[in-house]
Amino acid sequence: MALSVEKTAAGREYKVKDMSQADFGRLEIELAEGAKITGSLHMTIQTAVLIETLTALGAEVRWCSCNIFSTQDHAAAAIARDSAAVFAWKGETLQEYWWCTERALDWGPTGGPDLIVDDGGDATLLIHEGVKAEEVYEKTGQLPDPASTDNAEFQIVLTIIRDGLKADPKKYRRMKERLVGVSEETTTGVKRLYQMQANGTLLFPAINVNDSVTKSKFDNLYGCRHSLPDGLMRATDVMIAGKVAVVCGYGDVGKGCAAALKQAGARVIVTEIDPICALQALMEGLQVLTLEDVVSEADIFVTTTGNKDIIMVDHMRKMKNNAIVCNIGHFDNEIDMLGLESYPGVKRITIKPQTDRWVFPETKTGIIVLAEGRLMNLGCATGHPSFVMSCSFTNQVIAQLELWKEKATGKYEKKVYVLPKHLDEKVAALHLGKLGAKLTKLTKDQADYISVPVEGPYKPPHYRY
Amino acid sequence: MALSVEKTAAGREYKVKDMSQADFGRLEIELAEGAKITGSLHMTIQTAVLIETLTALGAEVRWCSCNIFSTQDHAAAAIARDSAAVFAWKGETLQEYWWCTERALDWGPTGGPDLIVDDGGDATLLIHEGVKAEEVYEKTGQLPDPASTDNAEFQIVLTIIRDGLKADPKKYRRMKERLVGVSEETTTGVKRLYQMQANGTLLFPAINVNDSVTKSKFDNLYGCRHSLPDGLMRATDVMIAGKVAVVCGYGDVGKGCAAALKQAGARVIVTEIDPICALQALMEGLQVLTLEDVVSEADIFVTTTGNKDIIMVDHMRKMKNNAIVCNIGHFDNEIDMLGLESYPGVKRITIKPQTDRWVFPETKTGIIVLAEGRLMNLGCATGHPSFVMSCSFTNQVIAQLELWKEKATGKYEKKVYVLPKHLDEKVAALHLGKLGAKLTKLTKDQADYISVPVEGPYKPPHYRY
Amino acid sequence: MALSVEKTAAGREYKVKDMSQADFGRLEIELAEGAKITGSLHMTIQTAVLIETLTALGAEVRWCSCNIFSTQDHAAAAIARDSAAVFAWKGETLQEYWWCTERALDWGPTGGPDLIVDDGGDATLLIHEGVKAEEVYEKTGQLPDPASTDNAEFQIVLTIIRDGLKADPKKYRRMKERLVGVSEETTTGVKRLYQMQANGTLLFPAINVNDSVTKSKFDNLYGCRHSLPDGLMRATDVMIAGKVAVVCGYGDVGKGCAAALKQAGARVIVTEIDPICALQALMEGLQVLTLEDVVSEADIFVTTTGNKDIIMVDHMRKMKNNAIVCNIGHFDNEIDMLGLESYPGVKRITIKPQTDRWVFPETKTGIIVLAEGRLMNLGCATGHPSFVMSCSFTNQVIAQLELWKEKATGKYEKKVYVLPKHLDEKVAALHLGKLGAKLTKLTKDQADYISVPVEGPYKPPHYRY
Amino acid sequence: MALSVEKTAAGREYKVKDMSQADFGRLEIELAEGAKITGSLHMTIQTAVLIETLTALGAEVRWCSCNIFSTQDHAAAAIARDSAAVFAWKGETLQEYWWCTERALDWGPTGGPDLIVDDGGDATLLIHEGVKAEEVYEKTGQLPDPASTDNAEFQIVLTIIRDGLKADPKKYRRMKERLVGVSEETTTGVKRLYQMQANGTLLFPAINVNDSVTKSKFDNLYGCRHSLPDGLMRATDVMIAGKVAVVCGYGDVGKGCAAALKQAGARVIVTEIDPICALQALMEGLQVLTLEDVVSEADIFVTTTGNKDIIMVDHMRKMKNNAIVCNIGHFDNEIDMLGLESYPGVKRITIKPQTDRWVFPETKTGIIVLAEGRLMNLGCATGHPSFVMSCSFTNQVIAQLELWKEKATGKYEKKVYVLPKHLDEKVAALHLGKLGAKLTKLTKDQADYISVPVEGPYKPPHYRY
Repeated sequence: MALSVEKTAAGREYKVKDMSQADFGRLEIELAEGAKITGSLHMTIQTAVLIETLTALGAEVRWCSCNIFSTQDHAAAAIARDSAAVFAWKGETLQEYWWCTERALDWGPTGGPDLIVDDGGDATLLIHEGVKAEEVYEKTGQLPDPASTDNAEFQIVLTIIRDGLKADPKKYRRMKERLVGVSEETTTGVKRLYQMQANGTLLFPAINVNDSVTKSKFDNLYGCRHSLPDGLMRATDVMIAGKVAVVCGYGDVGKGCAAALKQAGARVIVTEIDPICALQALMEGLQVLTLEDVVSEADIFVTTTGNKDIIMVDHMRKMKNNAIVCNIGHFDNEIDMLGLESYPGVKRITIKPQTDRWVFPETKTGIIVLAEGRLMNLGCATGHPSFVMSCSFTNQVIAQLELWKEKATGKYEKKVYVLPKHLDEKVAALHLGKLGAKLTKLTKDQADYISVPVEGPYKPPHYRY
Repeated sequence: MALSVEKTAAGREYKVKDMSQADFGRLEIELAEGAKITGSLHMTIQTAVLIETLTALGAEVRWCSCNIFSTQDHAAAAIARDSAAVFAWKGETLQEYWWCTERALDWGPTGGPDLIVDDGGDATLLIHEGVKAEEVYEKTGQLPDPASTDNAEFQIVLTIIRDGLKADPKKYRRMKERLVGVSEETTTGVKRLYQMQANGTLLFPAINVNDSVTKSKFDNLYGCRHSLPDGLMRATDVMIAGKVAVVCGYGDVGKGCAAALKQAGARVIVTEIDPICALQALMEGLQVLTLEDVVSEADIFVTTTGNKDIIMVDHMRKMKNNAIVCNIGHFDNEIDMLGLESYPGVKRITIKPQTDRWVFPETKTGIIVLAEGRLMNLGCATGHPSFVMSCSFTNQVIAQLELWKEKATGKYEKKVYVLPKHLDEKVAALHLGKLGAKLTKLTKDQADYISVPVEGPYKPPHYRY
Repeated sequence: MALSVEKTAAGREYKVKDMSQADFGRLEIELAEGAKITGSLHMTIQTAVLIETLTALGAEVRWCSCNIFSTQDHAAAAIARDSAAVFAWKGETLQEYWWCTERALDWGPTGGPDLIVDDGGDATLLIHEGVKAEEVYEKTGQLPDPASTDNAEFQIVLTIIRDGLKADPKKYRRMKERLVGVSEETTTGVKRLYQMQANGTLLFPAINVNDSVTKSKFDNLYGCRHSLPDGLMRATDVMIAGKVAVVCGYGDVGKGCAAALKQAGARVIVTEIDPICALQALMEGLQVLTLEDVVSEADIFVTTTGNKDIIMVDHMRKMKNNAIVCNIGHFDNEIDMLGLESYPGVKRITIKPQTDRWVFPETKTGIIVLAEGRLMNLGCATGHPSFVMSCSFTNQVIAQLELWKEKATGKYEKKVYVLPKHLDEKVAALHLGKLGAKLTKLTKDQADYISVPVEGPYKPPHYRY
Repeated sequence: MALSVEKTAAGREYKVKDMSQADFGRLEIELAEGAKITGSLHMTIQTAVLIETLTALGAEVRWCSCNIFSTQDHAAAAIARDSAAVFAWKGETLQEYWWCTERALDWGPTGGPDLIVDDGGDATLLIHEGVKAEEVYEKTGQLPDPASTDNAEFQIVLTIIRDGLKADPKKYRRMKERLVGVSEETTTGVKRLYQMQANGTLLFPAINVNDSVTKSKFDNLYGCRHSLPDGLMRATDVMIAGKVAVVCGYGDVGKGCAAALKQAGARVIVTEIDPICALQALMEGLQVLTLEDVVSEADIFVTTTGNKDIIMVDHMRKMKNNAIVCNIGHFDNEIDMLGLESYPGVKRITIKPQTDRWVFPETKTGIIVLAEGRLMNLGCATGHPSFVMSCSFTNQVIAQLELWKEKATGKYEKKVYVLPKHLDEKVAALHLGKLGAKLTKLTKDQADYISVPVEGPYKPPHYRY
């Protein structure tokens, strides 16, 4: 499989590996005892390097993607042949998606994985829902009922659990018992974890990798600044200059998207619920309005909120002919795809895979929806570039090592943790050389003056960067 | 062929057609007499619309591409089936390329085309060289000798002419006789035309479309600002932010490239021969150095000069491992591909089509060359977006109509002409509505005060925009 | 004094007043009991509005500036005549500066102020040092010895305390007893407070206003983005485009400065100790080097670190002729003014107030130092614009009201606090209307989905914006 | 007069002098014969250097300003004491202004100047109107009648001519006879010259300095990008970020202004009559609307058109309270100051010199007008920075030398000329070193390939940069 070799030859991929070996070599012995890791995270070239870093550190790995469109099939194939069990392909159905997730978690009769690398929280969700169902079943004999929910995807989750339950009514509880912890990649998954922590339902320790500065302020921001226009261009070849673009949400992802669109010559309008983020948008010269204000005048719409029901079918009906609608938030419920699909008389014309034109019957005009409302940068392009993913995944590796190292010490309870700042700074430091940067060194006298150690960490925990 | 229909449905393509029909409808009768047009211009979706505009105006068309990698095969197929004779596919050899050019010019025994749409001047060159060879042959019986030149491509041109000469020793002169004129698309072709005008060797009238403001200050500048990063991302997925990029040349194309790279977060260094352009680069915060100063520290190199021998193999040897080298100027001689290919012990590893890694034997390090040194935006992506090409091609259509209308009046001599400014302004005006712009109208009093007609043109000929 | 009336007429100033009256009207009764407030904060037009807001809420106010150059004399005069006791003028000596601080704290025999508005922590420092000296004196009869320190400014502080000690040996302890708390404006002062909290030496509660998002991510960032180029232009009229600028430190202030310089066309180089901030600079296309690397090639140097000894006289000697050296960090010890002044044979030529050319004897070349190394935006221009200061000072007012309201409840101990997020969001919301923004409202369903109240706060405490 | 010495010490000023001496030293002998030069151009520090360059080359100089507010009084005083006859002060009345112009042209009984340096064309206008009046008077005995025009300023011009006519009825014709030519600085003056050339009324040769690339594409563009925000900040201290700004006109000046405002964080809306310039604005992400569309929502209005009657009093009445209205075009008739002043019940409140608030009686709201509608960058700040003026004035010096050298050869007829491109490139080349740039040199082979001399000029005359 030549392609993975090519990428390796590009040097970037070796970066994370070398780094880990150099800096965490002494920890290798622990993962080398054979930690079993399940990952649910976009199966791309960059993730392939993460997987091979984990296996090089001694782990056994099973992997699925966390998005039906994000798998790069050559990356999946290379890993499947050389390094780990992989269950992922581009263009899964939702049934297939959850089957893959279940496969990746299934390590046979001894229980599930020791560690989970999660992105969006679907692997974590499946275990939590599984445990819940098993407990109900044990107490009441009642099986989960897919018809109890309107949510089509959750019906599938319940079906999978139900179907497995009779065969093995303790599977998920064995998983829970074995599991040392999860490290979670993204805002959406982290939000779920904090909700479970607040409700007291979290079943195992979790490290919030998303909120490492070198993750959320790099991957979410600079990654999207790169991959949003990449996805737009590959999917539509549209000229961004001169267009009116609406970015829904001005968090880290929205900031990256708005910056990219503005720099490419679009006029950008932001929608926000949070007055602080709104004021930030204004300070950058962006207009802040509601979607209703601009729905019929804009050319490009991007959702970045992490919330649901942002662009509804009633919005889409009012858009200009060939307005482009896409989502770069984790889940596909930011855009009302269900409402669109079930709109009476609507016609879907597939221009090419992941680029659909939907024509409304009244107006005969249509809109272009990318990646069926799922992450357009992964569905229509190749996601974030390696450099920024190297920052994110170095945090993942550190988190996995930390959970594993402390597995017997009780350091981590059933709570959500972030990595300590000196590790965050270390991740950044490891990436400076590649870009030719030279750091200034504090003198002892200067360090004392600002009350920090000479070698860092340099900022208080509340510092915002 | 569904794809051409889809694009048409996107509305952009209809734009140029509607415009032409509305504004030049009265001219239709003339092209409708059946002007024969040969085009040598990248066979893309955008060009397909140009071709169909010309046929809708009544012309017969034969087409070839002006670059071996720039053809979009689905566009070529759609046109070949529906509208015109097409000789073009992605990945031609140089022999095939010139065969295609010769085919596109060959309208049978009655002579060649009435009009040429040229891009880079290869169709024009073939006729001029053909005529020259025929005249020498008629006088001296001597055939062109491909061995008389070192230039591999020119050897092919001479071979084609030589091979045809015995069969039909008057072919190119018949072409010349019939030809009403050529409209030329790009800087490089225009340069050749002015040279021939200066030497007195130009055989027919030429309209310089490149120097319409709505072409050179839009297509060259904003088109490249869009398509350079698009090509980089599709070919390499490299993160541009944080990288050092060298842009050779700071004309319109270089300005667009430098702006795109800077906006994406690269540190941009410009090389220039012209002190005025150099000072412009400095005013934008770009560093101006020579290639030698930075060759071993930069990550990305782009040539935009329109000159030759810009990045030589000796430069490439000194580059960092996996430096990216590409060209967005018209011809492939900006990068010393010949020197690279013939470097002793060099190895070429094709990562994917149009993306090659060349490894030097001494250092085992390699560089990434895009599109074999040819136009990377067309070789690795899809070229400029439709909106900007609509500006360029509206100028082409106007030029063709103008040449045809005046074919019998002697208005155009064997010289190079630019389109009058009121047509340039018209091209711009036709594109404003799509972007929601509203023009201010001069009052008569204001118009008199600045001595222009109320309806324009508004600027003196020397105005630089 | 017409000027304050004119500014009031501009509407901005009324903004804060109206806002406070509308939203905190119910709190007025408490400050109306007559809280005595001492402020040590740049005595500008914007601060005048803060003072009048506090007096409108019922407080009595005494004020000094926290910088010898930052007072706008017409603002000081207007307040002195109309609203509060003011001790401040542009161009104080250090002796005069500390005399002013001591005057502003002196509310007569009943003790000092109830509340302090501090900026940089000098008022807080004076009380702490005063108390310490009184305690030593009471125990040992020993007076503070100015000769015990090398620091010229601290010698002055000790002298003032010593001179007052014999007359009134309990003055600072009475102040401490009376004091309800301090609200601190800036990074430097906050750092001091956290140090005292860590050492257990903090004598009264403190609210860290600096780390409200609507302060540090606005005032520090966007304020400096505005006022750095303003100061440079007013002081030197230098063209920023084309110049090489070094920004020492890439925190919020450094980010604002670097953005302003880059946008104006400079090539910007950043120096940093923190690898995370360094990586952020790289992602924006800025070069990260050490000062030593670039000292002899840059045209403009700006210190923003909050640390000391950043640009030393040995650096200055190596700079280009007429390099501009300035500081926008809180204290003047970022630039080695002492080293410069005492350099053998150096000559100071005052071009105009706050703009000095210092010529070195060996080279006869000189550098331009702004505002004697103090805050150049206040020394050479008028500081931050009103809009951004309105954000900061709304936080100050809220903090003062909060301290006062809770003065008897024991809610605030001798620790450092930040304002709760809903107040931070309120400050932002109050400033949106002026800029024509419209917020999107969450539905209850959406709010539940992301687990926040419909009316906010919308983000977890660790969110970085 | 210490200030001029200080500025000299800053090195910039020496730049032009050294350059001229080095490169045009051989020409010195000609100006050294004692050319009499009258200048009508903003009497600033930068102009002082121009004057001293001319005197260093041997000329005698008399000078006035071309704007009633643009004189920097210390610059005027220094030149008056040391170098030339100066008639200029900040805040002239229009009567005083034309008196100054007439004084600067009056070299006594032997006639007027040999050469004129003009900016806006007022010196040129006075001579043309004077000659016309003398000819009518000689033929008909009729004196010019100020009452024959509505234009208040032109009434003053006619009055001055009338008053001088009886005393010396041949003065302006003697001037015309003696005059070798004029070099004109700016777009507005150039427009007048081309009109006179077209009408056949131009009385002497003129060199259009404005259209040297190193003038119009630098001074107009980058100069205004610097000095527009400088003027706004000094006059109003307004925060530009977050504001809505309208730029009327998107020529070189408008492009510079719009770029500055956008970069500072404003949302910029452009008004344009020319569809090409409008399309350029759109490609930069700016909105293009009419003034009527946005008059009541914008915060800042800037006129840059070179036309008249752009912002009328009826527009101003509809603006938001404290909207800022200013002009950076050459003449003050872009803003309807007359309409404003004569509006019934309007009140003018002078906040500080050149910053007036005008309150309308109906609404009690007011607008802020800068520099009474005249060039706000010169009225409220110090105009363009020295670096860019050095480019412009190097062109002026070259133009003056060229006119003088060719005074007897008949090379220049009564027409308008631009400087040849090699001199334009020379001006740029002379300014590169200061910014650390290094040019690439063409090989002979490369130069031949693109058909230019190795040493330039490098571009065809129609090249737009």
